[in-house]
Amino acid sequence: MLAYIAGFLDGDGSIFFQIVRRKDYRRKFQIRSSVAFYQKTDSCRILKWLKGRLKAGYIRHRKTGISDYTIVESKEVERILSILHPYVKLKKRQLELGLKILRKLKKSQSNKDFLGVCRQVDKFKLLNYSKKRTVTCSVVSKSLPL
Amino acid sequence: MLAYIAGFLDGDGSIFFQIVRRKDYRRKFQIRSSVAFYQKTDSCRILKWLKGRLKAGYIRHRKTGISDYTIVESKEVERILSILHPYVKLKKRQLELGLKILRKLKKSQSNKDFLGVCRQVDKFKLLNYSKKRTVTCSVVSKSLPL
Repeated sequence: MLAYIAGFLDGDGSIFFQIVRRKDYRRKFQIRSSVAFYQKTDSCRILKWLKGRLKAGYIRHRKTGISDYTIVESKEVERILSILHPYVKLKKRQLELGLKILRKLKKSQSNKDFLGVCRQVDKFKLLNYSKKRTVTCSVVSKSLPL
Repeated sequence: MLAYIAGFLDGDGSIFFQIVRRKDYRRKFQIRSSVAFYQKTDSCRILKWLKGRLKAGYIRHRKTGISDYTIVESKEVERILSILHPYVKLKKRQLELGLKILRKLKKSQSNKDFLGVCRQVDKFKLLNYSKKRTVTCSVVSKSLPL
C-alpha cells in the first residue's frame, strides 16, 4: 500500500515548501510544508481513499474540475514523508531535503537558525523548478535581525 | 515494485483503446491498445526505469517538454495489465474491460466478433471521458459486411 501511494505521489503528486508572510508570527514568516495529490474531481474517490490511509489533511474541489488532497501540518508531513521514503523514486531528493528542513525547523531557536531553514527552502525550489515563489530567504533576511 | 507502478499509472498514466483506420488490414480497421505513462522530460529517467521493469514499449520526448512511455503491442499490453491488476485502484474498471477486449480480440474470427470488440472499445471510451474519438463501432459497422 505504501509503495502504491509512493507511485501515485511520483506520478501526479507534489512535495513543496513555501515561506509565507504572517503578521501574527513572531518571525513574521511561516515555513509551510505541503504534500499534495491531484486528480480530476470525477475520480476524487482515490483522494478519499488516500486520506483514509494517511489520516491527515483535507480534500478540496476546484472549479477547474481538479481536486486535490493536501497535507500541510508539519508533524503530519514529516510522518508521511518518513513512511513513504523507502518507496519513492522520482521525488527522492525532494523527500529527503523536505525531511531535513522539517527536522531543522523543529530545532530552530534563533533567527539565524530560521534563516538557515529558509535557505534550504530556496534550495528545495530548485528541485521543483518552481517559478512562482516570491518570498525567498533573502526577503526574510531583510526583515529579521540576526 | 508492481504496487509502485500501479500507483504511478493511477496517478498520471493512461490505459486506452483506439479503432484506427488501416487500408492494408483485412478488416480495414485495427484495434490499438495502449498503456502510457507521462512525465516532464526533465524527469524522464523514471520512464526509463519503468521501461526497464516492464520490458516493452518505447519512450518519446515531445516538444512540449512532456515525455511519454507507451506500450501498444497487444500481447505486451495484456501481460502488463495482468500483472498490475491486483494493485491498480483508480483505473480498475478500465484495466478489467481492457483485458476483456484484448482476450476477445485474440479469439475474434468473424466480422461479427470484431464488431463486438469495437462495441466494447466504445464502452471503454465512456470510462475515460474521451472526447476525441471519431472512429466508433458504428463507423466500422458501416464498412464491414456481416
